[in-house]
Amino acid sequence: MKINLNADIAEGFGAYDIGNDAELMTIIRSANVACGFHAGDANSMHRLVTLAKTEAVSIGVHSGFNDLWGFGRRKIDMDPKDLELMVAYQIGALKAMARYAGLAVTHLKPHGALNNMAAVREDYALAIGRAIQVVDAELIYVALTGSEMEKAARKLGLKLAREGFADRQYEQDGNLTPRSIPGSVYEDPAVALAQCLAMVRDGHVVSRQGSRVAVAAETICVHGDEPTAVALARHVRQGLEAAGCRIVTIPEMLN
Amino acid sequence: MKINLNADIAEGFGAYDIGNDAELMTIIRSANVACGFHAGDANSMHRLVTLAKTEAVSIGVHSGFNDLWGFGRRKIDMDPKDLELMVAYQIGALKAMARYAGLAVTHLKPHGALNNMAAVREDYALAIGRAIQVVDAELIYVALTGSEMEKAARKLGLKLAREGFADRQYEQDGNLTPRSIPGSVYEDPAVALAQCLAMVRDGHVVSRQGSRVAVAAETICVHGDEPTAVALARHVRQGLEAAGCRIVTIPEMLN
Amino acid sequence: MKINLNADIAEGFGAYDIGNDAELMTIIRSANVACGFHAGDANSMHRLVTLAKTEAVSIGVHSGFNDLWGFGRRKIDMDPKDLELMVAYQIGALKAMARYAGLAVTHLKPHGALNNMAAVREDYALAIGRAIQVVDAELIYVALTGSEMEKAARKLGLKLAREGFADRQYEQDGNLTPRSIPGSVYEDPAVALAQCLAMVRDGHVVSRQGSRVAVAAETICVHGDEPTAVALARHVRQGLEAAGCRIVTIPEMLN
Amino acid sequence: MKINLNADIAEGFGAYDIGNDAELMTIIRSANVACGFHAGDANSMHRLVTLAKTEAVSIGVHSGFNDLWGFGRRKIDMDPKDLELMVAYQIGALKAMARYAGLAVTHLKPHGALNNMAAVREDYALAIGRAIQVVDAELIYVALTGSEMEKAARKLGLKLAREGFADRQYEQDGNLTPRSIPGSVYEDPAVALAQCLAMVRDGHVVSRQGSRVAVAAETICVHGDEPTAVALARHVRQGLEAAGCRIVTIPEMLN
Repeated sequence: MKINLNADIAEGFGAYDIGNDAELMTIIRSANVACGFHAGDANSMHRLVTLAKTEAVSIGVHSGFNDLWGFGRRKIDMDPKDLELMVAYQIGALKAMARYAGLAVTHLKPHGALNNMAAVREDYALAIGRAIQVVDAELIYVALTGSEMEKAARKLGLKLAREGFADRQYEQDGNLTPRSIPGSVYEDPAVALAQCLAMVRDGHVVSRQGSRVAVAAETICVHGDEPTAVALARHVRQGLEAAGCRIVTIPEMLN
Repeated sequence: MKINLNADIAEGFGAYDIGNDAELMTIIRSANVACGFHAGDANSMHRLVTLAKTEAVSIGVHSGFNDLWGFGRRKIDMDPKDLELMVAYQIGALKAMARYAGLAVTHLKPHGALNNMAAVREDYALAIGRAIQVVDAELIYVALTGSEMEKAARKLGLKLAREGFADRQYEQDGNLTPRSIPGSVYEDPAVALAQCLAMVRDGHVVSRQGSRVAVAAETICVHGDEPTAVALARHVRQGLEAAGCRIVTIPEMLN
Repeated sequence: MKINLNADIAEGFGAYDIGNDAELMTIIRSANVACGFHAGDANSMHRLVTLAKTEAVSIGVHSGFNDLWGFGRRKIDMDPKDLELMVAYQIGALKAMARYAGLAVTHLKPHGALNNMAAVREDYALAIGRAIQVVDAELIYVALTGSEMEKAARKLGLKLAREGFADRQYEQDGNLTPRSIPGSVYEDPAVALAQCLAMVRDGHVVSRQGSRVAVAAETICVHGDEPTAVALARHVRQGLEAAGCRIVTIPEMLN
Repeated sequence: MKINLNADIAEGFGAYDIGNDAELMTIIRSANVACGFHAGDANSMHRLVTLAKTEAVSIGVHSGFNDLWGFGRRKIDMDPKDLELMVAYQIGALKAMARYAGLAVTHLKPHGALNNMAAVREDYALAIGRAIQVVDAELIYVALTGSEMEKAARKLGLKLAREGFADRQYEQDGNLTPRSIPGSVYEDPAVALAQCLAMVRDGHVVSRQGSRVAVAAETICVHGDEPTAVALARHVRQGLEAAGCRIVTIPEMLN
């Protein structure tokens, strides 16, 4: 039994910092690195790849909209070709910074609003996939299970890691419960762990409606925005390991 | 007899454009591509690498300060390590975009104020060199003849292409005549061609003071900011070829 | 008989320029000045207000999304309160720059995607109106005839100038014909002039479907993106004047 | 006996925050508000002016270079006229946001590298002064005692508040001791308070060299970057009040 834990990392910019990178990096095995568009800069990327080397964490491109002010959380309607090139650029930037630690870039996961839009828009999902295809076809496309991104990865013949969530409730149709619904974001580490164990062991979760929903996932996303989120992530990792599950990198999941 | 002609290219941003890329690209053999910091974006880089493929022009990183508003022409005092990482990031970005044309990135030349500062500041010159060393040690460091950049390239054991100027006058000490001095920027294509021929054939130019100054150069910079500059560049190329000089790429100069 | 002609102006940024400001400013009587978010900076604003003084053109805020790369043409989904404050900020910036010419800021017109979204989204339309209300309640809200912006201006008790278009075709429901439909953007100056005359004299236009549609407008938008657009604008102005129509500023339209 | 305490405030941007605004605002009486160039945005400005209303703190423009990445701490060499317009723009932005709290903007203090450069460069100091003169001649120019800014304010006939420092050591020539010299930044609240009391009561401080140096100041700068800085600022305020000194706003100091 094995699973990957991933998190969004290196989201500072210039004099600004955010998140709990140092702690999160001891919990996860794959890091999604902000690449200077929605967050991040050459310095934060450099710090992160150095840390990733130490912590044996695999690194991926956390590609986002060019929207630092909105932290990549604003939905932006743009030409898919422009989006593709923007993502390609970000891949190249991280590949360069990864040279500072002698690491390979292993995967790509869209950030925030781009992730949400690409989950349901075929054109965005394909644009991201094509950037991977051109710049580094070895990159693993991290895609919400069942999303347009999963379909795009398959259509383009890309490596794929399907993603589940530790701290988000699911609907009976397999979608995430909207944040506006109370209880949709788990704060209880035990509840999160239970969902992760169900996902890893049985390939399903229990939906808000009480039904079993199949969620196949090679990687589970944890968060680090708040101290409580880090505690939840740590509990999930320890609980999975206690249950005999190995926590591995995304490439190790696909081998 | 052979020489390279280089120019700064792809300096648009979003809806904005500047320069005469299409024309210049038929004259030069190596293009310095703006990489999204002082100018340029993924789209302009993509357009340029595609054009470079067609025109058999070699492409290089035109690394600049993160100063879009100032077009990289404002001198900025910053930590050399920050500068190194910023340059490394830009190298990566262009390497990614070059994949769209199946081209290798061949060289790096700093832009504007960064070029001026690195010509005289050892810390900046070395910072740029270290970025090359880490990200792609095959890149050729294009450095003003006699500058700190030339010294840095030698110190770090990097490939080096020394740069002369077609349309700028030289002082007797080998420095460029300041723009504030009338006549320092040549507008007469014949004068520019004469200087280029002297540089290529004899390895010297005639300074403002009338003396001969040694200027060893593997590449000569031409400009495209104005229609007259393009005409001058074309005259220089045709004149050099008429004199039996082959116009080659920067890598071809070093072989 | 009188009408205002307005145009989007001062859309440069740093070393970049775009459009034909100097020519357009001799044709229009009210200028919508980019304020540093989707385009423009303190320099372009300063140049424009100086020119506006000379040409007796009234100046207004051309408020846009904070999206320089996208030139404010990308639809962005954001919190209406954030939008309100962003617009308020831009109003302040232009009021400051207008001091250099001793001019008052007379109006506000949203730019590009923001204009399109605010035309149909009540929350955006009201957000823009509230910014006007707080920062300078004397500003005239320029709103597409029949849009949510017109409603918002009325609801908030703001001064209102309804806007028609010289070079865009109308649908029978009063909306603009989408640009994707051939012929929706007029290139023939005579056609544009005929539409303007119908609007000014009779308060209606002839729709794509051939029916008469009421379009009440205090101001007509002309464009300057291309030389042909400037020629069209000039033809419209001359034709209106030849027909006995005075071309006045937006405030003069409301008196 | 009276004095003003000022601090730099509202230095967040988008999703990023920095500093301890809420606490500092209970200690100071005048706030220097970042205006969207080196830091800050419409949201942070709005939050701050609202808080300033509650805490009876006067607000001023903290004008900085257009260098978000460098947090305005990188020295940038630019055309003084461009700088003037950039400062004018920032004044306008804050005046607009201040309308949300019905407050007047009372003063202007340059930030970081701009403050350091304007202290010694006449052209920068005058450029800032001219922006004040054009946009709002009532604004008080906050200037390091003895600096080029003080001279510029006098030359232009502007209102002036000279600034001293609570937590920085002085040299015998009246300049601040460089940060590179150990002990130049006070960490001991008692030392800072003693210096403030000497400044307020006697108009002098004791320099690093042990001599008395005249430092006339209407306002004293305190910092909030770290929790210890806030504690030091609070100690200074309480100590000054205990000694019978009233802590007033900058305008109250000049009446």
